[in-house]
Amino acid sequence: MEVINELLGYPKLKIYQDSERFNFSIDSMIVASFATIKYNTKNIIDLGTGNAPIPLFLTLRTKAHIDAVEIQEGSYNLAKKSIEINNLADRISLYHDDIRGIYKKLGHQKYDLVISNPPFFKYKEGSNINKNDYKTIARHEVMLDLDSLCQEVIMLLNNGGSFVMVHRPDRLADIICHLRKYNLEPKRIRFVYPKYGCEANHVLIESKRSTQQGGLKVLPPLVIHNEDGTHTDEILKIYNQRDEVSEENL
Amino acid sequence: MEVINELLGYPKLKIYQDSERFNFSIDSMIVASFATIKYNTKNIIDLGTGNAPIPLFLTLRTKAHIDAVEIQEGSYNLAKKSIEINNLADRISLYHDDIRGIYKKLGHQKYDLVISNPPFFKYKEGSNINKNDYKTIARHEVMLDLDSLCQEVIMLLNNGGSFVMVHRPDRLADIICHLRKYNLEPKRIRFVYPKYGCEANHVLIESKRSTQQGGLKVLPPLVIHNEDGTHTDEILKIYNQRDEVSEENL
Repeated sequence: MEVINELLGYPKLKIYQDSERFNFSIDSMIVASFATIKYNTKNIIDLGTGNAPIPLFLTLRTKAHIDAVEIQEGSYNLAKKSIEINNLADRISLYHDDIRGIYKKLGHQKYDLVISNPPFFKYKEGSNINKNDYKTIARHEVMLDLDSLCQEVIMLLNNGGSFVMVHRPDRLADIICHLRKYNLEPKRIRFVYPKYGCEANHVLIESKRSTQQGGLKVLPPLVIHNEDGTHTDEILKIYNQRDEVSEENL
Repeated sequence: MEVINELLGYPKLKIYQDSERFNFSIDSMIVASFATIKYNTKNIIDLGTGNAPIPLFLTLRTKAHIDAVEIQEGSYNLAKKSIEINNLADRISLYHDDIRGIYKKLGHQKYDLVISNPPFFKYKEGSNINKNDYKTIARHEVMLDLDSLCQEVIMLLNNGGSFVMVHRPDRLADIICHLRKYNLEPKRIRFVYPKYGCEANHVLIESKRSTQQGGLKVLPPLVIHNEDGTHTDEILKIYNQRDEVSEENL
């Protein structure tokens, strides 16, 4: 069933969702909030945008132009309607396409920032997962794995550009090895913990197109929930407020 | 000047230090505390033991035999005296030797646990660092770099054995790539923060000799100091108490 929701705490942004599809989640909000947006960030691309929560959120932080690519037609249609209802068609360009090779259509080394909330789980041929299912494609590396993603990112990023991704900590070693394979160097990492005292369940990574290795910063932990189940102040700030620094860029 | 100190909060353990040398630090205590000690952990080796804080601390957690290797004569002599004054010569065997190739003398695939607090900083030929200085050798990769360390570890570890290390987060990508190069897979990582809200300044990593990739857990943050500069409860516990689980192994 298709519904229109608020994009979390942002009454001015609406998002179309479909209960049978993969709905946007907190991952998209925290990765869009984590990305460094600079005064000269002009071109952004979101790879595997789903129903476009990341581009919608980013319009609150920057006036840069945002391209967004989604291969699944159902999600693409929801994203299209969300962009229209928010009157953001002049700031977000949506493409119904495969990420692999997209740089040939959209531009080689065009982007200051590539952002993605990609499929997290490895896909094994012969497993009993239905690889044509919408949710499987959003969650499992059926159509896009880490290697293909990094390979595309390096073609899209300009010199000095950055690649920001949310992923799962259990894939961290894979992630770092694939990034380095394509000359992407991790520079900022932040681990996300569901509660204090728990293991991390997400990781936010910002890499630079760079030949200079090292210089990684591991930021303070981001904790989602307090002991009583309410959201922590930092998460409430992500949900409800504009980013103070990036206000200047609007 | 040579002095005898308590090994932090442990009145029963003494450690010889020399104010002109590299004194043991909290790094050694937290890495010794972080390592998984199992009921069947029989042989442990500490690579680059300095004045032996890690082996001394580990004797509180396990009855396994601990080999400890140190290349610098001054530190080796302090370690020897510390082991003697604590009457631990039957539990800790000390070797004044180079780590590179040490497996040929001490045993190929002999160890259940390899532990190390290695030099953290890259060394560049031609930099104005005195590469013969005691502290330089302890801190900079003059005599042992990450690659040589991992290469040696894989020769020392038995099947199913683990390698535990403390290092700096800014080297995390290097660390992971070198571990994987030698078929060591990171399985547990814990970041250490000087205070709440700061960037991590140390990382604890446990890897397994394994062909199976993935399955990494990122543990809750370890915070050293409270806002008022006092140690956090968890650090006080490391300083003052025996590990509850490992009590059973004593």
